[in-house]
Amino acid sequence: MSDPRIDVIGIGNAIVDILVHADDDLLVSEGMTKGAMTLIDADEAKRLYEKTDGAIECSGGSAANTIAGLASLGGSGVFVGKVHNDRMGEVFRNDIHAIGVSYDTLPTVSGPPTATSMVLVTPDAKRTMQTFLGACVDLGPEDIDLEQIADAEITYLEGYLWDPPAAKEAFLKAADAAHQAGRKVSLSLSDPFCVDRHREDFLDLAEHHVDILFANEEEIMTLYQVENFNDALQAVRSHCEVAALTRSEKGSVVVSGDEVHIVDAEVVDTLVDTTGAGDAYAAGLLFGLTSGRDLFTSARIGGICAAECISHLGARSNVSFKALIEEKLG
Amino acid sequence: MSDPRIDVIGIGNAIVDILVHADDDLLVSEGMTKGAMTLIDADEAKRLYEKTDGAIECSGGSAANTIAGLASLGGSGVFVGKVHNDRMGEVFRNDIHAIGVSYDTLPTVSGPPTATSMVLVTPDAKRTMQTFLGACVDLGPEDIDLEQIADAEITYLEGYLWDPPAAKEAFLKAADAAHQAGRKVSLSLSDPFCVDRHREDFLDLAEHHVDILFANEEEIMTLYQVENFNDALQAVRSHCEVAALTRSEKGSVVVSGDEVHIVDAEVVDTLVDTTGAGDAYAAGLLFGLTSGRDLFTSARIGGICAAECISHLGARSNVSFKALIEEKLG
Repeated sequence: MSDPRIDVIGIGNAIVDILVHADDDLLVSEGMTKGAMTLIDADEAKRLYEKTDGAIECSGGSAANTIAGLASLGGSGVFVGKVHNDRMGEVFRNDIHAIGVSYDTLPTVSGPPTATSMVLVTPDAKRTMQTFLGACVDLGPEDIDLEQIADAEITYLEGYLWDPPAAKEAFLKAADAAHQAGRKVSLSLSDPFCVDRHREDFLDLAEHHVDILFANEEEIMTLYQVENFNDALQAVRSHCEVAALTRSEKGSVVVSGDEVHIVDAEVVDTLVDTTGAGDAYAAGLLFGLTSGRDLFTSARIGGICAAECISHLGARSNVSFKALIEEKLG
Repeated sequence: MSDPRIDVIGIGNAIVDILVHADDDLLVSEGMTKGAMTLIDADEAKRLYEKTDGAIECSGGSAANTIAGLASLGGSGVFVGKVHNDRMGEVFRNDIHAIGVSYDTLPTVSGPPTATSMVLVTPDAKRTMQTFLGACVDLGPEDIDLEQIADAEITYLEGYLWDPPAAKEAFLKAADAAHQAGRKVSLSLSDPFCVDRHREDFLDLAEHHVDILFANEEEIMTLYQVENFNDALQAVRSHCEVAALTRSEKGSVVVSGDEVHIVDAEVVDTLVDTTGAGDAYAAGLLFGLTSGRDLFTSARIGGICAAECISHLGARSNVSFKALIEEKLG
């Protein structure tokens, strides 16, 4: 097995985020599930978009955010995800290229437009997402480049990929190819509701296909249907080579066999918007592992990136993660 | 080895607590180290006592609190510690008997009076202790009943015992006797300043003599002279059969070989006084272990007792811990 030329390939939904501030009343009147990602159709997306004022558009998508974070740390990242040949698709492509990520997935020329996610940020810094999957439903196994997968140390998949049906096949094809090439497969559970939708599949993935699992406290408890974090911790230890469990202000816990590390949260001066915190954490941890750091240090890098992410609006940072890590870890 | 007839024998300083509310200014003007236990002499104790008004007197002492908590849970506990034959000695004896603890250590008839600890509770619920060791300095190996030690499942020792010189010999004699009888030895590190005073001895104890170690975050980091909790966690894992590390509002972490459990803190409505929280936690965990519970459940019982303890003034509770645990754990 030759040395990988890519640190991480992320496969996910290619989405343009539309960020708006919202109060809790709007969420209630619209019947939205606070803190969750809800799938909506084109008409609903259009209706919501017309109601917003002063929205900020920026590239998003969970795995895409993670690969963007990895690039900001100085890692070599590739993103695979489907946009349409339209203005939003251009926004997505330009943004992800600008940050130094390789992105060559062919855009669709027919079918639905580029995916958008209306991200409503409430005053408590929580985000509620209404996502129109758009062109993402057209991602399929044909978009997976087996040579590229074999060239990447880690193939990273977002759980949200389980929502568009054909993407699931792309997901499994990529995971198999990575393992056949002796590489690692990583999965983020994405969202507790997403876990609820696909529990059986995710349990099977965690047990048989995933080497490095990312989940927040709620997601991992939902996956194993347990009532406290510790029970989930014990369950996941026997399943994955590495599990990284994030706990918001309680920091994170990373486990690998007999290794268990408790990583306290970084101090955050002003909590602005939690959008992308989990994605930034995954970026930091994957960067740490692919740059040869130990598990604890890698998780600390994850925590530092997450803390930076939640200190501003939106899932991506203007701050160079690389400079930040050099400052914090020396 | 026959079944033990005693769950836990606690050996510690027999102290009467004198609880007073104080503001931070008093601590500053008296040059006290906030949050710590400082040793003072008889004159200083007298001077401070005369300055207080409306103080509450009650039995205290770290290991004594733990054995009192164990009894409140329905466990069978014995306390060993030295008082003088005086009024404060009577207060101590009556209180500990009233809660159902066996206590037969002979009082001194000459030498210093019964120990007192002025406990200054600041508005932030923190406690600062000025302790006059008094008769505690007369505890010695002759006070250890070897048959009783052999009859106890766990011999529990407080780190503060390392302060009065002869008590150290009693401590080691008890630990050896417990191990010779095939029983377990447990130690609480007591206080970060106490750890600083006796680091080399405590490291030796943790590595060679102690099966179940209790420490809070600051104490364990001070013991291993490390800068983050996780490093201390990794260090202690290779030393003790069981380590229970308390983290205030972050709950506790308990480790035993490959087992690592994260125990979230119980919700506390009103934080009144943290005096005795660590002692109550130890009571709950030791009760859990000696009543055949698994390590995680035992630590949860510890957390429930600690949460009850900090909800009122003073180290001991009027609430039956037994009823509380039945209510919370069913």
